[in-house]
Amino acid sequence: MHYEVEQKFRVTSHEPVVTALAALGLTFAEPIEQVDCYYRHPQRDFAQTDEAFRLRAVGEKNYLTYKGPKLDQSTKTRREEEVRLADGREARESCDAILRHLGFDPAATVRKHRLVATTQRRGFAAEIALDDVDHLGHFVELEVSVDADDPYSAAMESAKQVLTELAEELGLSEVERRSYLELLAAGH
Amino acid sequence: MHYEVEQKFRVTSHEPVVTALAALGLTFAEPIEQVDCYYRHPQRDFAQTDEAFRLRAVGEKNYLTYKGPKLDQSTKTRREEEVRLADGREARESCDAILRHLGFDPAATVRKHRLVATTQRRGFAAEIALDDVDHLGHFVELEVSVDADDPYSAAMESAKQVLTELAEELGLSEVERRSYLELLAAGH
Repeated sequence: MHYEVEQKFRVTSHEPVVTALAALGLTFAEPIEQVDCYYRHPQRDFAQTDEAFRLRAVGEKNYLTYKGPKLDQSTKTRREEEVRLADGREARESCDAILRHLGFDPAATVRKHRLVATTQRRGFAAEIALDDVDHLGHFVELEVSVDADDPYSAAMESAKQVLTELAEELGLSEVERRSYLELLAAGH
Repeated sequence: MHYEVEQKFRVTSHEPVVTALAALGLTFAEPIEQVDCYYRHPQRDFAQTDEAFRLRAVGEKNYLTYKGPKLDQSTKTRREEEVRLADGREARESCDAILRHLGFDPAATVRKHRLVATTQRRGFAAEIALDDVDHLGHFVELEVSVDADDPYSAAMESAKQVLTELAEELGLSEVERRSYLELLAAGH
């Protein structure tokens, strides 16, 4: 199974992190724009169950993603399943039409500009994402992807340590455990 | 909107149709195997609402498809929305995992070998599919795709006439209005 071990930090500016990443010799990939349309389930309240279901557009690329409930109190470790769709607006609109026919409703759209740097730590690929989110401001997300049978395995613990170390090295301290969707709903 | 005007016929053998198609100068594309996994909705009984939702694999290609209720009594005209997914088993399994997390359950799998010939009639692309369906036998499906704003438009009527003419030319008479899924459930 695929898990996403993730922690998000609120920052007033990305500059200190950019400087710290440069000092580590890390560089950014091309900037991307992500537009995430989150859906309401016809039967379950995802806010209650702590799940999320969204259609993500990254330029022409489209992804359908399910995120399970968070599995611990400090990080945002959770089950994640994602499937890539055909590229382009038409595929995105067809998928949206299918979901609406099935009773799903668009709940909110999160739009952000993201700069991503990646690094290898303890055998894991770690991702550092500098997010500029419409209506919400600046954030840094640290993410380690883990394929593990058990969310409480040694690999998962090791992945969490990678997050802790990275956060320290990048001077990140203000943890934001709520999703962008939750923050938007709360009016932050 | 996209509509599928379709009629299905039961045959004891495909041979007479193959002969009739050859006389019309039509040839077949490469034979394909389609594996359709139909899902149950967490809240609605698709058998009652006359809808269908499936994940189709055609070799390595994957498609997610919603079909709305049939709109008339004689043909199988209905709304159809489809999105292509990434190719391969992994994408298919991820999509299946997402659907299960959302409360959809696999209801049944329809597996068939299909030979397709296409022709132009009255400005429409018509498809003649010779199906050999596991556990069900031999069928011929005639299908015309129509992009129309209104399911009762002149274009839709014209598409239905194409079906009627083709059925006559191919000697098809035993209409089967039930889906393969319904036939499987009924034990035919």
